[in-house]
Amino acid sequence: MPPDVQQVPAATVARLPLYLRCLEELEQTKVETVSSSRLAELAGVNAAKLRKDLSHLGSYGTRGVGYQVAHLMRSIRFELGLDEQSPVIVIGLGNLGQALVNHAGFGDRGFPIVAVFDIDPNKIGRRVEGVDTAVEHLDNLETVVAAHEARTAIITTPVGAAQSATDRVVAAGITSVLNFAPTVVQVPEGVALRQVDLALELQILSYYQPRPETSPEHGARDENLRAAR
Amino acid sequence: MPPDVQQVPAATVARLPLYLRCLEELEQTKVETVSSSRLAELAGVNAAKLRKDLSHLGSYGTRGVGYQVAHLMRSIRFELGLDEQSPVIVIGLGNLGQALVNHAGFGDRGFPIVAVFDIDPNKIGRRVEGVDTAVEHLDNLETVVAAHEARTAIITTPVGAAQSATDRVVAAGITSVLNFAPTVVQVPEGVALRQVDLALELQILSYYQPRPETSPEHGARDENLRAAR
Repeated sequence: MPPDVQQVPAATVARLPLYLRCLEELEQTKVETVSSSRLAELAGVNAAKLRKDLSHLGSYGTRGVGYQVAHLMRSIRFELGLDEQSPVIVIGLGNLGQALVNHAGFGDRGFPIVAVFDIDPNKIGRRVEGVDTAVEHLDNLETVVAAHEARTAIITTPVGAAQSATDRVVAAGITSVLNFAPTVVQVPEGVALRQVDLALELQILSYYQPRPETSPEHGARDENLRAAR
Repeated sequence: MPPDVQQVPAATVARLPLYLRCLEELEQTKVETVSSSRLAELAGVNAAKLRKDLSHLGSYGTRGVGYQVAHLMRSIRFELGLDEQSPVIVIGLGNLGQALVNHAGFGDRGFPIVAVFDIDPNKIGRRVEGVDTAVEHLDNLETVVAAHEARTAIITTPVGAAQSATDRVVAAGITSVLNFAPTVVQVPEGVALRQVDLALELQILSYYQPRPETSPEHGARDENLRAAR
Protein backbone atom coordinates (compact mmCIF):
# COMPACT_ATOMS: atom_id res chain seq x y z
CA MET A 1 0.00 0.00 0.00
CA PRO A 2 1.41 3.42 -0.91
CA PRO A 3 2.41 5.55 2.09
CA ASP A 4 0.02 8.35 1.13
CA VAL A 5 -3.05 6.13 1.26
CA GLN A 6 -4.54 7.80 4.27
CA GLN A 7 -4.53 11.11 2.46
CA VAL A 8 -7.38 10.05 0.21
CA PRO A 9 -10.24 12.30 1.29
CA ALA A 10 -13.20 10.54 2.89
CA ALA A 11 -15.57 11.94 0.26
CA THR A 12 -13.40 10.41 -2.46
CA VAL A 13 -13.32 7.05 -0.69
CA ALA A 14 -17.11 7.13 -0.57
CA ARG A 15 -17.28 7.63 -4.35
CA LEU A 16 -14.74 4.98 -5.37
CA PRO A 17 -17.19 2.06 -5.02
CA LEU A 18 -19.61 3.95 -7.24
CA TYR A 19 -16.98 4.33 -9.96
CA LEU A 20 -16.12 0.66 -9.55
CA ARG A 21 -19.71 -0.36 -10.09
CA CYS A 22 -19.95 1.74 -13.26
CA LEU A 23 -16.68 0.23 -14.52
CA GLU A 24 -17.98 -3.28 -13.83
CA GLU A 25 -21.05 -2.51 -15.91
CA LEU A 26 -18.86 -1.18 -18.73
CA GLU A 27 -16.68 -4.28 -18.62
CA GLN A 28 -19.73 -6.49 -18.92
CA THR A 29 -20.54 -4.75 -22.17
CA LYS A 30 -16.94 -5.31 -23.39
CA VAL A 31 -15.97 -1.64 -23.21
CA GLU A 32 -12.19 -1.39 -22.77
CA THR A 33 -11.60 2.35 -22.38
CA VAL A 34 -13.79 5.14 -21.05
CA SER A 35 -13.44 8.91 -21.04
CA SER A 36 -13.62 10.77 -17.75
CA SER A 37 -16.70 12.62 -18.95
CA ARG A 38 -18.53 9.40 -19.83
CA LEU A 39 -17.60 7.70 -16.57
CA ALA A 40 -18.60 10.82 -14.66
CA GLU A 41 -21.94 10.85 -16.43
CA LEU A 42 -22.57 7.21 -15.55
CA ALA A 43 -21.70 7.86 -11.92
CA GLY A 44 -23.71 11.08 -11.73
CA VAL A 45 -20.81 13.30 -10.64
CA ASN A 46 -19.08 16.06 -12.52
CA ALA A 47 -16.05 15.18 -14.62
CA ALA A 48 -13.58 17.49 -12.86
CA LYS A 49 -14.43 15.91 -9.54
CA LEU A 50 -14.01 12.42 -10.97
CA ARG A 51 -10.60 13.27 -12.42
CA LYS A 52 -9.53 14.73 -9.08
CA ASP A 53 -10.80 11.64 -7.22
CA LEU A 54 -8.91 9.28 -9.49
CA SER A 55 -5.74 11.36 -9.31
CA HIS A 56 -5.56 10.33 -5.62
CA LEU A 57 -5.03 6.79 -6.90
CA GLY A 58 -2.35 7.92 -9.31
CA SER A 59 -4.73 7.32 -12.23
CA TYR A 60 -4.75 10.15 -14.73
CA GLY A 61 -6.02 8.52 -17.92
CA THR A 62 -4.64 9.34 -21.35
CA ARG A 63 -5.70 12.46 -23.21
CA GLY A 64 -8.00 11.56 -26.08
CA VAL A 65 -8.27 7.95 -24.91
CA GLY A 66 -9.45 8.04 -21.34
CA TYR A 67 -9.02 5.34 -18.73
CA GLN A 68 -8.34 1.64 -19.30
CA VAL A 69 -11.40 0.02 -17.71
CA ALA A 70 -9.64 -3.11 -16.45
CA HIS A 71 -6.67 -1.21 -15.06
CA LEU A 72 -8.80 1.35 -13.29
CA MET A 73 -10.93 -1.39 -11.74
CA ARG A 74 -7.81 -3.05 -10.37
CA SER A 75 -6.56 0.26 -8.93
CA ILE A 76 -9.83 0.98 -7.18
CA ARG A 77 -10.13 -2.55 -5.81
CA PHE A 78 -6.59 -2.35 -4.49
CA GLU A 79 -7.17 1.03 -2.91
CA LEU A 80 -10.33 -0.17 -1.19
CA GLY A 81 -8.73 -3.40 -0.03
CA LEU A 82 -11.15 -5.54 -2.04
CA ASP A 83 -8.53 -8.04 -3.20
CA GLU A 84 -9.64 -10.63 -0.69
CA GLN A 85 -12.97 -12.03 0.44
CA SER A 86 -14.13 -10.40 3.67
CA PRO A 87 -16.53 -12.55 5.68
CA VAL A 88 -19.49 -10.70 7.20
CA ILE A 89 -21.84 -11.56 10.07
CA VAL A 90 -25.37 -10.22 10.50
CA ILE A 91 -26.83 -9.50 13.95
CA GLY A 92 -30.63 -9.59 13.98
CA LEU A 93 -32.85 -11.57 11.62
CA GLY A 94 -35.84 -9.23 11.32
CA ASN A 95 -37.26 -8.16 7.97
CA LEU A 96 -34.24 -6.10 7.14
CA GLY A 97 -31.77 -8.76 8.24
CA GLN A 98 -33.65 -11.23 6.06
CA ALA A 99 -33.55 -8.83 3.11
CA LEU A 100 -29.81 -8.30 3.51
CA VAL A 101 -29.09 -12.00 3.76
CA ASN A 102 -31.10 -12.66 0.60
CA HIS A 103 -29.49 -9.75 -1.22
CA ALA A 104 -27.51 -11.32 -4.02
CA GLY A 105 -24.99 -8.50 -4.24
CA PHE A 106 -22.86 -9.19 -1.16
CA GLY A 107 -21.17 -12.50 -1.86
CA ASP A 108 -20.57 -11.57 -5.50
CA ARG A 109 -18.73 -8.47 -4.40
CA GLY A 110 -16.43 -10.09 -1.88
CA PHE A 111 -18.57 -9.95 1.25
CA PRO A 112 -20.00 -13.43 1.88
CA ILE A 113 -22.39 -13.55 4.84
CA VAL A 114 -20.99 -16.41 6.92
CA ALA A 115 -23.33 -16.32 9.92
CA VAL A 116 -26.55 -14.77 11.18
CA PHE A 117 -27.29 -14.25 14.88
CA ASP A 118 -30.48 -13.65 16.80
CA ILE A 119 -31.77 -14.18 20.34
CA ASP A 120 -35.29 -15.35 19.42
CA PRO A 121 -35.55 -19.12 20.20
CA ASN A 122 -37.92 -19.48 17.21
CA LYS A 123 -35.20 -18.31 14.86
CA ILE A 124 -32.16 -20.12 16.28
CA GLY A 125 -31.28 -23.15 14.17
CA ARG A 126 -33.38 -22.03 11.21
CA ARG A 127 -31.79 -22.30 7.76
CA VAL A 128 -31.67 -19.09 5.79
CA GLU A 129 -31.21 -18.95 2.04
CA GLY A 130 -27.90 -17.40 1.14
CA VAL A 131 -26.07 -18.49 4.29
CA ASP A 132 -24.35 -21.86 4.71
CA THR A 133 -24.93 -22.17 8.45
CA ALA A 134 -28.12 -22.14 10.53
CA VAL A 135 -29.08 -19.07 12.58
CA GLU A 136 -26.88 -18.92 15.68
CA HIS A 137 -27.67 -17.68 19.15
CA LEU A 138 -25.82 -14.49 20.02
CA ASP A 139 -24.15 -16.37 22.85
CA ASN A 140 -22.08 -18.24 20.25
CA LEU A 141 -20.76 -15.00 18.77
CA GLU A 142 -17.13 -15.22 19.88
CA THR A 143 -16.68 -18.80 18.67
CA VAL A 144 -18.25 -18.19 15.27
CA VAL A 145 -16.40 -14.92 14.63
CA ALA A 146 -13.10 -16.62 15.44
CA ALA A 147 -13.88 -19.69 13.31
CA HIS A 148 -14.68 -17.60 10.22
CA GLU A 149 -12.14 -14.85 10.92
CA ALA A 150 -14.98 -12.40 10.31
CA ARG A 151 -14.04 -8.76 10.70
CA THR A 152 -17.24 -7.03 9.61
CA ALA A 153 -20.66 -7.03 11.29
CA ILE A 154 -23.97 -5.70 10.05
CA ILE A 155 -26.28 -4.62 12.88
CA THR A 156 -30.00 -4.93 12.11
CA THR A 157 -31.36 -5.25 15.64
CA PRO A 158 -34.14 -3.12 17.11
CA VAL A 159 -33.00 0.33 18.29
CA GLY A 160 -32.81 -0.66 21.95
CA ALA A 161 -30.39 -3.52 21.27
CA ALA A 162 -28.09 -1.81 18.77
CA GLN A 163 -25.48 -0.43 21.16
CA SER A 164 -25.16 -3.62 23.19
CA ALA A 165 -24.95 -5.70 19.99
CA THR A 166 -22.24 -3.35 18.73
CA ASP A 167 -20.32 -3.63 22.00
CA ARG A 168 -20.52 -7.41 21.83
CA VAL A 169 -19.28 -7.73 18.25
CA VAL A 170 -16.41 -5.34 18.93
CA ALA A 171 -15.46 -7.35 22.03
CA ALA A 172 -15.52 -10.47 19.84
CA GLY A 173 -12.95 -8.97 17.48
CA ILE A 174 -15.02 -7.25 14.79
CA THR A 175 -13.28 -4.14 13.42
CA SER A 176 -15.88 -2.82 10.95
CA VAL A 177 -19.50 -2.15 11.85
CA LEU A 178 -22.29 -1.27 9.44
CA ASN A 179 -25.27 -0.17 11.53
CA PHE A 180 -28.78 -0.23 10.06
CA ALA A 181 -30.61 0.33 13.34
CA PRO A 182 -32.03 3.86 13.29
CA THR A 183 -29.96 5.09 16.21
CA VAL A 184 -26.40 6.35 16.54
CA VAL A 185 -24.05 3.77 18.05
CA GLN A 186 -20.60 4.45 19.43
CA VAL A 187 -17.50 2.41 18.69
CA PRO A 188 -14.06 2.59 20.29
CA GLU A 189 -11.05 4.13 18.55
CA GLY A 190 -9.73 1.90 15.79
CA VAL A 191 -13.09 0.40 14.84
CA ALA A 192 -14.58 1.64 11.58
CA LEU A 193 -18.27 2.52 11.59
CA ARG A 194 -20.87 3.46 9.04
CA GLN A 195 -24.46 4.18 9.92
CA VAL A 196 -27.12 3.55 7.31
CA ASP A 197 -30.39 5.19 8.22
CA LEU A 198 -33.06 4.67 5.63
CA ALA A 199 -35.33 7.49 6.78
CA LEU A 200 -32.30 9.77 6.86
CA GLU A 201 -31.82 9.22 3.14
CA LEU A 202 -35.38 10.44 2.63
CA GLN A 203 -34.68 13.50 4.78
CA ILE A 204 -31.67 14.38 2.65
CA LEU A 205 -33.77 13.98 -0.50
CA SER A 206 -36.34 16.27 1.06
CA TYR A 207 -33.88 19.16 0.99
CA TYR A 208 -33.56 18.81 -2.77
CA GLN A 209 -37.27 18.43 -3.32
CA PRO A 210 -38.56 21.35 -5.39
CA ARG A 211 -40.58 23.51 -3.02
CA PRO A 212 -43.43 25.86 -3.82
CA GLU A 213 -41.47 28.94 -2.73
CA THR A 214 -38.54 28.18 -4.99
CA SER A 215 -38.97 27.88 -8.69
CA PRO A 216 -36.12 28.03 -11.16
CA GLU A 217 -33.26 26.90 -9.02
CA HIS A 218 -33.82 23.23 -8.52
CA GLY A 219 -31.43 22.44 -11.31
CA ALA A 220 -28.67 23.89 -9.18
CA ARG A 221 -29.90 21.93 -6.20
CA ASP A 222 -29.92 18.78 -8.18
CA GLU A 223 -26.36 19.34 -9.25
CA ASN A 224 -25.50 19.98 -5.65
CA LEU A 225 -27.09 16.66 -4.77
CA ARG A 226 -25.17 14.78 -7.39
CA ALA A 227 -22.02 16.41 -6.14
CA ALA A 228 -22.75 14.91 -2.74
CA ARG A 229 -22.67 11.36 -4.03
CA MET B 1 -36.97 29.95 2.79
CA PRO B 2 -33.92 32.17 3.09
CA PRO B 3 -32.39 33.19 -0.25
CA ASP B 4 -29.05 31.58 0.56
CA VAL B 5 -30.51 28.13 1.10
CA GLN B 6 -28.93 26.61 -1.96
CA GLN B 7 -25.52 27.56 -0.70
CA VAL B 8 -25.60 24.91 2.01
CA PRO B 9 -22.90 22.44 0.94
CA ALA B 10 -24.13 18.99 -0.03
CA ALA B 11 -21.94 17.36 2.63
CA THR B 12 -23.59 19.56 5.28
CA VAL B 13 -27.07 18.70 4.02
CA ALA B 14 -26.17 15.02 4.33
CA ARG B 15 -25.19 15.51 8.00
CA LEU B 16 -28.19 17.58 9.09
CA PRO B 17 -30.52 14.56 9.46
CA LEU B 18 -27.89 12.92 11.64
CA TYR B 19 -27.78 15.95 13.96
CA LEU B 20 -31.57 15.98 13.98
CA ARG B 21 -31.70 12.37 15.09
CA CYS B 22 -29.25 13.04 17.92
CA LEU B 23 -31.28 16.08 19.00
CA GLU B 24 -34.47 14.01 18.98
CA GLU B 25 -32.81 11.49 21.28
CA LEU B 26 -31.66 14.29 23.59
CA GLU B 27 -35.14 15.77 23.68
CA GLN B 28 -36.60 12.41 24.66
CA THR B 29 -34.34 12.45 27.71
CA LYS B 30 -35.52 15.99 28.55
CA VAL B 31 -32.21 17.65 27.73
CA GLU B 32 -32.85 21.30 26.81
CA THR B 33 -29.41 22.56 25.81
CA VAL B 34 -26.39 20.81 24.34
CA SER B 35 -22.81 21.92 23.75
CA SER B 36 -21.36 21.66 20.26
CA SER B 37 -18.74 19.21 21.53
CA ARG B 38 -21.35 16.90 23.08
CA LEU B 39 -23.59 16.99 20.01
CA ALA B 40 -20.57 16.37 17.78
CA GLU B 41 -19.59 13.39 19.91
CA LEU B 42 -23.10 11.93 19.68
CA ALA B 43 -23.11 12.38 15.91
CA GLY B 44 -19.57 11.04 15.48
CA VAL B 45 -18.18 14.15 13.74
CA ASN B 46 -15.65 16.66 14.98
CA ALA B 47 -16.91 19.72 16.83
CA ALA B 48 -15.44 22.32 14.47
CA LYS B 49 -17.19 20.69 11.53
CA LEU B 50 -20.47 20.60 13.41
CA ARG B 51 -20.24 24.29 14.29
CA LYS B 52 -19.46 25.13 10.67
CA ASP B 53 -22.39 23.01 9.46
CA LEU B 54 -24.83 24.69 11.82
CA SER B 55 -23.54 28.16 10.95
CA HIS B 56 -25.02 27.59 7.47
CA LEU B 57 -28.40 27.57 9.20
CA GLY B 58 -27.61 30.75 11.08
CA SER B 59 -27.33 28.75 14.33
CA TYR B 60 -24.27 29.66 16.35
CA GLY B 61 -25.19 28.56 19.86
CA THR B 62 -24.30 30.57 22.95
CA ARG B 63 -20.82 30.45 24.44
CA GLY B 64 -20.85 28.44 27.66
CA VAL B 65 -24.43 27.29 27.09
CA GLY B 66 -24.50 25.65 23.68
CA TYR B 67 -27.52 25.15 21.48
CA GLN B 68 -31.18 25.14 22.49
CA VAL B 69 -32.27 21.62 21.55
CA ALA B 70 -35.85 22.49 20.56
CA HIS B 71 -34.83 25.55 18.58
CA LEU B 72 -32.09 23.76 16.70
CA MET B 73 -34.45 20.89 15.83
CA ARG B 74 -36.91 23.40 14.35
CA SER B 75 -34.15 25.07 12.32
CA ILE B 76 -32.93 21.80 10.86
CA ARG B 77 -36.45 20.57 10.08
CA PHE B 78 -37.21 23.85 8.34
CA GLU B 79 -33.98 23.75 6.37
CA LEU B 80 -34.65 20.20 5.22
CA GLY B 81 -38.28 20.92 4.36
CA LEU B 82 -39.58 18.43 6.93
CA ASP B 83 -42.45 20.63 8.14
CA GLU B 84 -44.99 18.65 6.16
CA GLN B 85 -45.74 14.98 5.65
CA SER B 86 -44.29 13.73 2.37
CA PRO B 87 -46.08 10.67 0.98
CA VAL B 88 -43.82 7.97 -0.43
CA ILE B 89 -44.47 5.10 -2.84
CA VAL B 90 -42.44 1.87 -3.04
CA ILE B 91 -41.83 0.10 -6.37
CA GLY B 92 -41.08 -3.60 -5.93
CA LEU B 93 -42.24 -5.82 -3.06
CA GLY B 94 -39.29 -8.18 -2.76
CA ASN B 95 -37.54 -8.84 0.55
CA LEU B 96 -36.11 -5.38 0.70
CA GLY B 97 -39.36 -3.69 -0.28
CA GLN B 98 -41.09 -5.68 2.44
CA ALA B 99 -38.44 -4.67 4.99
CA LEU B 100 -38.79 -1.01 4.07
CA VAL B 101 -42.56 -1.10 4.27
CA ASN B 102 -42.41 -2.71 7.71
CA HIS B 103 -39.74 -0.29 8.90
CA ALA B 104 -41.35 1.73 11.63
CA GLY B 105 -39.14 4.77 11.13
CA PHE B 106 -40.64 6.23 7.97
CA GLY B 107 -44.14 7.30 8.94
CA ASP B 108 -42.93 8.60 12.30
CA ARG B 109 -40.48 10.84 10.56
CA GLY B 110 -42.84 12.37 8.05
CA PHE B 111 -42.60 9.86 5.20
CA PRO B 112 -45.72 7.69 5.25
CA ILE B 113 -45.66 4.92 2.66
CA VAL B 114 -48.97 5.39 0.87
CA ALA B 115 -48.73 2.71 -1.81
CA VAL B 116 -46.67 -0.29 -2.90
CA PHE B 117 -46.43 -1.44 -6.53
CA ASP B 118 -45.38 -4.69 -8.12
CA ILE B 119 -46.02 -6.55 -11.36
CA ASP B 120 -46.28 -10.07 -9.88
CA PRO B 121 -49.96 -11.19 -10.06
CA ASN B 122 -49.44 -13.12 -6.80
CA LYS B 123 -48.63 -9.92 -4.97
CA ILE B 124 -51.22 -7.56 -6.47
CA GLY B 125 -54.10 -7.01 -4.06
CA ARG B 126 -52.22 -8.37 -1.06
CA ARG B 127 -52.43 -6.39 2.18
CA VAL B 128 -49.11 -5.32 3.65
CA GLU B 129 -48.65 -4.29 7.25
CA GLY B 130 -47.74 -0.63 7.51
CA VAL B 131 -49.58 0.45 4.35
CA ASP B 132 -53.27 1.36 4.22
CA THR B 133 -53.87 0.17 0.67
CA ALA B 134 -53.39 -3.20 -1.00
CA VAL B 135 -50.44 -3.80 -3.34
CA GLU B 136 -51.15 -2.11 -6.67
CA HIS B 137 -50.18 -3.13 -10.17
CA LEU B 138 -47.60 -0.82 -11.70
CA ASP B 139 -50.12 0.00 -14.42
CA ASN B 140 -52.08 2.01 -11.84
CA LEU B 141 -49.07 4.16 -11.01
CA GLU B 142 -50.22 7.46 -12.51
CA THR B 143 -53.64 7.34 -10.85
CA VAL B 144 -52.29 6.45 -7.42
CA VAL B 145 -49.46 9.01 -7.48
CA ALA B 146 -51.93 11.73 -8.42
CA ALA B 147 -54.48 10.66 -5.78
CA HIS B 148 -51.92 10.76 -2.96
CA GLU B 149 -49.91 13.68 -4.34
CA ALA B 150 -46.83 11.53 -3.76
CA ARG B 151 -43.55 13.11 -4.79
CA THR B 152 -41.04 10.53 -3.59
CA ALA B 153 -40.49 6.97 -4.84
CA ILE B 154 -38.32 4.21 -3.42
CA ILE B 155 -37.09 1.78 -6.09
CA THR B 156 -36.49 -1.78 -4.84
CA THR B 157 -36.92 -3.67 -8.09
CA PRO B 158 -34.41 -6.15 -9.53
CA VAL B 159 -31.47 -4.52 -11.32
CA GLY B 160 -32.89 -5.08 -14.79
CA ALA B 161 -36.11 -3.22 -13.99
CA ALA B 162 -34.67 -0.27 -12.06
CA GLN B 163 -34.20 2.18 -14.93
CA SER B 164 -37.60 1.53 -16.48
CA ALA B 165 -39.27 1.80 -13.06
CA THR B 166 -37.45 5.09 -12.49
CA ASP B 167 -38.53 6.40 -15.89
CA ARG B 168 -42.14 5.47 -15.15
CA VAL B 169 -42.29 7.13 -11.73
CA VAL B 170 -40.69 10.29 -13.10
CA ALA B 171 -43.20 10.35 -15.95
CA ALA B 172 -45.96 9.98 -13.33
CA GLY B 173 -44.81 13.13 -11.54
CA ILE B 174 -42.36 11.86 -8.91
CA THR B 175 -39.57 14.39 -8.24
CA SER B 176 -37.43 12.50 -5.68
CA VAL B 177 -36.08 9.00 -6.24
CA LEU B 178 -34.34 6.81 -3.67
CA ASN B 179 -32.86 3.86 -5.53
CA PHE B 180 -31.97 0.66 -3.66
CA ALA B 181 -31.42 -1.48 -6.75
CA PRO B 182 -27.67 -2.13 -7.05
CA THR B 183 -27.27 -0.30 -10.34
CA VAL B 184 -26.88 3.34 -11.28
CA VAL B 185 -30.08 4.87 -12.65
CA GLN B 186 -30.34 8.14 -14.54
CA VAL B 187 -32.92 10.84 -13.87
CA PRO B 188 -33.69 13.97 -15.87
CA GLU B 189 -32.68 17.46 -14.75
CA GLY B 190 -34.79 18.68 -11.87
CA VAL B 191 -35.38 15.27 -10.31
CA ALA B 192 -33.46 14.56 -7.10
CA LEU B 193 -31.81 11.17 -6.82
CA ARG B 194 -30.02 9.22 -4.15
CA GLN B 195 -28.62 5.75 -4.67
CA VAL B 196 -28.35 3.43 -1.70
CA ASP B 197 -26.15 0.46 -2.45
CA LEU B 198 -25.75 -1.84 0.49
CA ALA B 199 -22.64 -3.64 -0.80
CA LEU B 200 -21.13 -0.24 -1.57
CA GLU B 201 -21.32 0.65 2.11
CA LEU B 202 -19.29 -2.48 2.86
CA GLN B 203 -16.75 -1.49 0.22
CA ILE B 204 -16.31 1.92 1.81
CA LEU B 205 -15.85 0.26 5.21
CA SER B 206 -13.25 -2.00 3.65
CA TYR B 207 -10.99 0.99 3.00
CA TYR B 208 -10.96 1.79 6.70
CA GLN B 209 -10.43 -1.80 7.75
CA PRO B 210 -7.09 -2.12 9.51
CA ARG B 211 -4.79 -3.97 7.10
CA PRO B 212 -1.76 -6.08 7.92
CA GLU B 213 0.63 -3.70 6.13
CA THR B 214 -0.53 -0.66 8.08
CA SER B 215 -0.27 -0.56 11.79
CA PRO B 216 -0.48 2.56 13.88
CA GLU B 217 -2.49 4.77 11.61
CA HIS B 218 -5.96 3.38 11.74
CA GLY B 219 -6.92 5.96 14.32
CA ALA B 220 -6.43 8.63 11.70
CA ARG B 221 -8.39 6.58 9.21
CA ASP B 222 -11.17 6.16 11.65
CA GLU B 223 -11.36 9.87 12.19
CA ASN B 224 -11.34 10.32 8.45
CA LEU B 225 -14.26 7.93 8.26
CA ARG B 226 -16.23 9.75 10.87
CA ALA B 227 -15.53 12.97 9.02
CA ALA B 228 -17.13 11.42 5.96
CA ARG B 229 -20.49 11.06 7.59
